[in-house]
Amino acid sequence: MGMIGGGLGAFIGEVHRIASRMDGHIELVCGAFSSNAEKSKASGESLYLPADRVYDNYEQMIIAESKLPEDVRMDFVSIVTPNHMHYAPAKMAIEYGFHVVCDKPMCFSLEEALDLQRVVNDSGLIFALTHNYTAYPMVKEAKHRIENGDLGAIRKVVVEYPQGWLSTALEQSNQKQAAWRTDPKRSGKAGAIGDIGTHAANLAEYMSGLRMEKIYADVNILVEGRLLDDDSNILIKYENGATGTLIASQISAGEENNLRIRIYGEKGSIEWSQMEPNSLIMRWLDQSTQIVRTGVGDLSEEAMAHTRLPAGHPEGYLEAFANIYRNVAKCIQARLKNETVHPLFKDYPDVNEGVRGMLFIDKVIKSGKLDDKWVEL
Amino acid sequence: MGMIGGGLGAFIGEVHRIASRMDGHIELVCGAFSSNAEKSKASGESLYLPADRVYDNYEQMIIAESKLPEDVRMDFVSIVTPNHMHYAPAKMAIEYGFHVVCDKPMCFSLEEALDLQRVVNDSGLIFALTHNYTAYPMVKEAKHRIENGDLGAIRKVVVEYPQGWLSTALEQSNQKQAAWRTDPKRSGKAGAIGDIGTHAANLAEYMSGLRMEKIYADVNILVEGRLLDDDSNILIKYENGATGTLIASQISAGEENNLRIRIYGEKGSIEWSQMEPNSLIMRWLDQSTQIVRTGVGDLSEEAMAHTRLPAGHPEGYLEAFANIYRNVAKCIQARLKNETVHPLFKDYPDVNEGVRGMLFIDKVIKSGKLDDKWVEL
Amino acid sequence: MGMIGGGLGAFIGEVHRIASRMDGHIELVCGAFSSNAEKSKASGESLYLPADRVYDNYEQMIIAESKLPEDVRMDFVSIVTPNHMHYAPAKMAIEYGFHVVCDKPMCFSLEEALDLQRVVNDSGLIFALTHNYTAYPMVKEAKHRIENGDLGAIRKVVVEYPQGWLSTALEQSNQKQAAWRTDPKRSGKAGAIGDIGTHAANLAEYMSGLRMEKIYADVNILVEGRLLDDDSNILIKYENGATGTLIASQISAGEENNLRIRIYGEKGSIEWSQMEPNSLIMRWLDQSTQIVRTGVGDLSEEAMAHTRLPAGHPEGYLEAFANIYRNVAKCIQARLKNETVHPLFKDYPDVNEGVRGMLFIDKVIKSGKLDDKWVEL
Amino acid sequence: MGMIGGGLGAFIGEVHRIASRMDGHIELVCGAFSSNAEKSKASGESLYLPADRVYDNYEQMIIAESKLPEDVRMDFVSIVTPNHMHYAPAKMAIEYGFHVVCDKPMCFSLEEALDLQRVVNDSGLIFALTHNYTAYPMVKEAKHRIENGDLGAIRKVVVEYPQGWLSTALEQSNQKQAAWRTDPKRSGKAGAIGDIGTHAANLAEYMSGLRMEKIYADVNILVEGRLLDDDSNILIKYENGATGTLIASQISAGEENNLRIRIYGEKGSIEWSQMEPNSLIMRWLDQSTQIVRTGVGDLSEEAMAHTRLPAGHPEGYLEAFANIYRNVAKCIQARLKNETVHPLFKDYPDVNEGVRGMLFIDKVIKSGKLDDKWVEL
Repeated sequence: MGMIGGGLGAFIGEVHRIASRMDGHIELVCGAFSSNAEKSKASGESLYLPADRVYDNYEQMIIAESKLPEDVRMDFVSIVTPNHMHYAPAKMAIEYGFHVVCDKPMCFSLEEALDLQRVVNDSGLIFALTHNYTAYPMVKEAKHRIENGDLGAIRKVVVEYPQGWLSTALEQSNQKQAAWRTDPKRSGKAGAIGDIGTHAANLAEYMSGLRMEKIYADVNILVEGRLLDDDSNILIKYENGATGTLIASQISAGEENNLRIRIYGEKGSIEWSQMEPNSLIMRWLDQSTQIVRTGVGDLSEEAMAHTRLPAGHPEGYLEAFANIYRNVAKCIQARLKNETVHPLFKDYPDVNEGVRGMLFIDKVIKSGKLDDKWVEL
Repeated sequence: MGMIGGGLGAFIGEVHRIASRMDGHIELVCGAFSSNAEKSKASGESLYLPADRVYDNYEQMIIAESKLPEDVRMDFVSIVTPNHMHYAPAKMAIEYGFHVVCDKPMCFSLEEALDLQRVVNDSGLIFALTHNYTAYPMVKEAKHRIENGDLGAIRKVVVEYPQGWLSTALEQSNQKQAAWRTDPKRSGKAGAIGDIGTHAANLAEYMSGLRMEKIYADVNILVEGRLLDDDSNILIKYENGATGTLIASQISAGEENNLRIRIYGEKGSIEWSQMEPNSLIMRWLDQSTQIVRTGVGDLSEEAMAHTRLPAGHPEGYLEAFANIYRNVAKCIQARLKNETVHPLFKDYPDVNEGVRGMLFIDKVIKSGKLDDKWVEL
Repeated sequence: MGMIGGGLGAFIGEVHRIASRMDGHIELVCGAFSSNAEKSKASGESLYLPADRVYDNYEQMIIAESKLPEDVRMDFVSIVTPNHMHYAPAKMAIEYGFHVVCDKPMCFSLEEALDLQRVVNDSGLIFALTHNYTAYPMVKEAKHRIENGDLGAIRKVVVEYPQGWLSTALEQSNQKQAAWRTDPKRSGKAGAIGDIGTHAANLAEYMSGLRMEKIYADVNILVEGRLLDDDSNILIKYENGATGTLIASQISAGEENNLRIRIYGEKGSIEWSQMEPNSLIMRWLDQSTQIVRTGVGDLSEEAMAHTRLPAGHPEGYLEAFANIYRNVAKCIQARLKNETVHPLFKDYPDVNEGVRGMLFIDKVIKSGKLDDKWVEL
Repeated sequence: MGMIGGGLGAFIGEVHRIASRMDGHIELVCGAFSSNAEKSKASGESLYLPADRVYDNYEQMIIAESKLPEDVRMDFVSIVTPNHMHYAPAKMAIEYGFHVVCDKPMCFSLEEALDLQRVVNDSGLIFALTHNYTAYPMVKEAKHRIENGDLGAIRKVVVEYPQGWLSTALEQSNQKQAAWRTDPKRSGKAGAIGDIGTHAANLAEYMSGLRMEKIYADVNILVEGRLLDDDSNILIKYENGATGTLIASQISAGEENNLRIRIYGEKGSIEWSQMEPNSLIMRWLDQSTQIVRTGVGDLSEEAMAHTRLPAGHPEGYLEAFANIYRNVAKCIQARLKNETVHPLFKDYPDVNEGVRGMLFIDKVIKSGKLDDKWVEL
């Protein structure tokens, strides 16, 4: 694996590195960790990389690596830069024949996303997007049970992603994470909607198996001087007529990272919360509530294939994140060995989900600007 | 106290009776428990009432009681009938000089409500509406702390009231509770919005101290053949610019009675859930979360005045309900003795909150029928 | 009902009054509320009792009431005094033909308890002890399911009752509740063991259906100057060979009233906590956990007979307490009317459970004084 | 790192590997993964190791690696075999100059442990024992706050470790994990006491800062035919006079891996549960409860040094486990570079804690065999 972005001090870059290392199938062999060559070099050194595999920029890396012998060069690229720096390196990597793992949201704009979708689909290469929250075993279990009809037809989806860390104008103190996420030049049209709203939308569609069809968005900037949305409340209609709400807020003071979803069907409902990810709550019309737990009882093979530990040994954010990398590694290995990969390992968010996320951003922002108008997705 | 409605087998009538008895200040002395005279009689008997104080209908009761000596006749009327039977007995009771405790929503229509408001205000009599959820000690505490500025300016209110008991067409099997609540002739314009949405709206305004200003409602009937709304998702703007959502749903399969609110301010947030009513969760921008508990530590006198037991002895729904009756009893006693009542006991929902609820119903239903229109409240 | 003890400012006296009033079958008609006649009088007045039914002491009350016409005099006595004042009034009431409801622990000493047991059994009268915690619907449900064999043979019982309110020498500041409970002349041999340990022991035996057979107790006084135990850890062997622990502590700083029990069988286990009394957690060898909830799904008639409200309307401490009074009232009514009472209403703690509690106190204190073969580490 | 044990299908071996990989400082370079040379080879292959670094047995590995150039050979040994195979390889590794990370309990017997302690202390080499539960950030935080006196003097420690997976005679079906843990020839004197009781004891002493001084143990075998203890209840006296209980049970049907501790001091108490490891509950004599959360607010540097992610991104079992490896890696790196290591990285369980654990096993089993003065009820 070669990494683009994720220099010293980056949050998500280190997450990607840990996730890629976890299962022992992936080795970081090179990187262009920063647009600043010095910083890239220092980062590579701290990661025990040989100097000649640490590059000044991504173009250099992609070109140089493509010239190395097959068994030496990187097998895929991991892109962990801010949003505005996803499209170009992803496209170039694909064009040079490298598979790609990319952070979300997929691009800076819907246009970029559509173009990237075309390029990826034409190439036949693997493109994975790190919508990591759908990689938790209990999310897989929920999806499986809903698909299986356990809840009956779905009637309502309530998904919310409140955080509190942008309750103050943190970006004005130059905090790195806040700065680029609130900067239209690096983040795109959306702030919280892009950063966390896309996760919530992805989770809702993935778990329910339903596509959003129409949205009506109340999009707000609640911290003075901020340039992008930090708090939205959205009404949603799903393809089958189910209704719902989606909240994406970064000014919900005191909330940590509280992605939470409830899906209601005719016969029962399911609740999952990212902050207690190993429990899945199932409630029924007229039976006791069930707490389905990672590793306990009769679980789907989808859940089990994404679990490492026995019951009661909590798996968390990094393990879910690592599930995406593990699946990608399995798929790449299979290609290298000309083998068939088990379908369970093909379960990672792809370029189409990336486009879906960019569409969500686009439509929410559009609806938020209109006064009284449902927007079709 | 004399009771109108609440015959044998009624749910809310028995709740009112238990609540009124709990603190020993109120005695049920008469009743017109049913529009069916036989049933009224049987109900009175089972309640150990003398036969001559059990009436065939409310008109008879109000007239007869008004002729009894002051120290014998009922001091106030408790109205626990379905919505369409609130206005007439309430108005008549007031006109005959009786105080009134009335179940919610206050009336069948906004017009009735406005008229009743006028009558009550002109009379100077006590009129209490049993929005019982705001009578929990931890709701009082939350209101006090928000009023006190502990959270800073309020930015967001997320209130939801999901139930699952109307997930099927229960009304078609003649289940009594379901039947009148889904019948436009007895319930009014609204189903779930009137039955539980008004509780949620009342809680949001009471706790936050903010009035709703604009709403945008997605109002649905999800069970086939049902005549009134059973699931709504509502966007709300509050008077100070705060935003929020309100969900009122009776088809959220598996949910019991899960009224829950989160209020976010600049400095922190507060969460309260009716199903765990003795805990108030306070989260802060950069401090540990606090669990404020009934009876523990330095609480407001508002909370303490509505608590009966030491910490860790759970108080529930009936105790909160009883708080309204206790306060009304204290206020009536004070009038009878020509004394001043402690301001803490004046804290019960009144006719103005009743009008507010009817306005909420009216506007939500209106917005729900429009395609794309915010409605001012 | 006539009450002995429970004058103004008493905690448990007011609890008994609320509990007795709740279901409308019981009326407080007289009382000897204090050993101080003036205080008794004032208490009676505040309770709206006629002056001639407020007595100077319990002897006077029992004698006077016994001379009143049957339909006027009290039907039973409620004894809510400190421990040293249970035996004499209970015995006298029984001897004058009155049924008795008595607070726990039943007596000052085991000897008193055995004598009272004899007297009660000889009389054929009703004697109920307010081990209120076993009157929660979910405790009934748990007992029913265990009896039914759902867990298989019971192997282990872990019961604990930590409180923190005696973490300081509160009794030295003359706090009324603390003063008598830590005074060997009023409380008896035991402090926390009598006050809360008996509740825990009663709950363990009631729910499991098993009798304790052997105990090894580590009994401590951890607050300087205190005269009775405030913290105990006890090992227990049950009659069927099951093992377990029992903790009774009033110096567990920060704990409110955290009575909690877990019972483990061959096939699964059950957990119940008094502070969240409407949930019963059932865990299984290889299935998802179940949360059995008051009012939800297929519950035993034992649970349903002790529930007043629909699901999600929390019932608490007072409702459980009231269940004992309601059952006693039903039993007394049946006797008065010469009817058979439904077996469900005969389910209240009786004089034999009272003896069992006194035996528990006696043996724990005895074991605590022995210096056994502790092994040094 | 070279690994001894942990062949294909081993649970704890894979845990050690993931933990060692997580932070990118440690590379697995060789192994003797099984006493079966073929199985060792296959395991090495699946781990992408070159064939010449996969050994037939640990003796071969230690000798061969010691002859490799310093920059090639393994820096330390990780021992992940069953208990009876800890001592010999650990001792040999130390004697050949390799640092050691060893799974718990440290040895087969107390005698072995004392000898190993001597050898390690004489060598000056690093020896770390994977009592992984004390490596969670919130355990560090708890220890820090207790040390700091936040709770006042400690009065009571309640620690329990219930699991349910050995509720049936799983060992008779040849399940690998069950088989050796219940076999006196591989596990030692103790079953559950060694496997999980030592974790509980270690956690209690680490977090409280207090040593156990006396124990009274009720040690049971509850599953027929089992050869070692599967359920124990233990009374404990700590050096400062604090009391407590410790439960170690593997027949607590339905429990997953529920290590949980509560420590009570004069001023407040602290609760931590392994299954929700990112919350630390602090309760106070007369203030609201606090939920201290990983990554939130003003935490100790001890906690922060063992945290990888921002608040609300759950870290679990593997991350805590990895903290031990990370610290060991930092200490070894510092030695290699002749640098001083930051004291925070010296915080890992060492050979002395290993001896302490073996002493605990020894004394519990001894106490369990004594027939003390149990008092009959």
